Amino acid sequence: MHYHNFAEFAIDKTFQFIEPGPVLLLATQYKQKTNVMTLSWSTLFDFTPQIGCVLSPGDYTFEMLKAAKECVLGIPAVDIMEKTVQIGNCSGKDADKFKIFNLTPLPAKIVKAPLIKECLVNIECKVTDTSLADRYGLFVMDGVKTWFDENRIEKRTFHANGDGTFVIDGETKNLKHLMTKWQIFI
Amino acid sequence: MHYHNFAEFAIDKTFQFIEPGPVLLLATQYKQKTNVMTLSWSTLFDFTPQIGCVLSPGDYTFEMLKAAKECVLGIPAVDIMEKTVQIGNCSGKDADKFKIFNLTPLPAKIVKAPLIKECLVNIECKVTDTSLADRYGLFVMDGVKTWFDENRIEKRTFHANGDGTFVIDGETKNLKHLMTKWQIFI
Repeated sequence: MHYHNFAEFAIDKTFQFIEPGPVLLLATQYKQKTNVMTLSWSTLFDFTPQIGCVLSPGDYTFEMLKAAKECVLGIPAVDIMEKTVQIGNCSGKDADKFKIFNLTPLPAKIVKAPLIKECLVNIECKVTDTSLADRYGLFVMDGVKTWFDENRIEKRTFHANGDGTFVIDGETKNLKHLMTKWQIFI
Repeated sequence: MHYHNFAEFAIDKTFQFIEPGPVLLLATQYKQKTNVMTLSWSTLFDFTPQIGCVLSPGDYTFEMLKAAKECVLGIPAVDIMEKTVQIGNCSGKDADKFKIFNLTPLPAKIVKAPLIKECLVNIECKVTDTSLADRYGLFVMDGVKTWFDENRIEKRTFHANGDGTFVIDGETKNLKHLMTKWQIFI
């Protein structure tokens, strides 16, 4: 299925976008309010994919996500790196971040939160467990539909070093021949 | 403090090694048995650093870590990438992986698990919560002491794409000027 600049991407291979640990955007919608935040603390729990995202109670998205129990995880590529960092430097409490950062929200297919047209990948997610949000900031969610901008030229993602510097994807090394135990995934 | 090829690294900046999401090695020791596994599902929970590592119940380390409640997280650089992938392709149930992969265990200072001399970074960790291991494979741990091989020439880390390919750190981009809200960390 195609939708705007996106092609639907196999949900059972979607973990491959999260596993490298790129910086993510997280879009939420709750009661007419739409927001987007930058996130670099995430992990996989399984190949569904079940994904864990760690937010701070200080994030405006924190209570929205608890209530809405749905979101979109967007994976930005290098061409929107500066914008992604700026999104992480202000709060949706004060601003409509889609508007001020000139991001294009597109209606998602399953969840109410919007896709972000400018991202390389968008993963529609249903939050399945908020019971660890207060203790660890952890929201557990299932990816339920994925959109991939296959025709995009810039596909390199980036990772936060935590000191205000970011490392961009470099060379890719193919080591499939060493992963004989895990053929099922490759 | 210096120790073999390592210098002690500030514990409150140690999160900066985990945040980019590199492939990790996880070394354990329990009842005379030492083991090491490869891991790419991890996240931060706070800047302590409190770290979450996701293991499979099928991993030999899983029960060892539940019992030992201590480990060392090693961060391999590109020069031991193939070895790291091979470590992830076999089980410590059948083999002494330190021996067959020619890794040098060094006594850690706080935990019983060994440091890995060949890694760029070693983080001694105390497991603080195993209650989510059965549900999510999640082990919550605190980094308590960190060792950094500052004189090492190859410092690039790598990330798993989940399909048997790995992406190596490329260019670093300094965007500190955009992170005015988070000056405390930079």
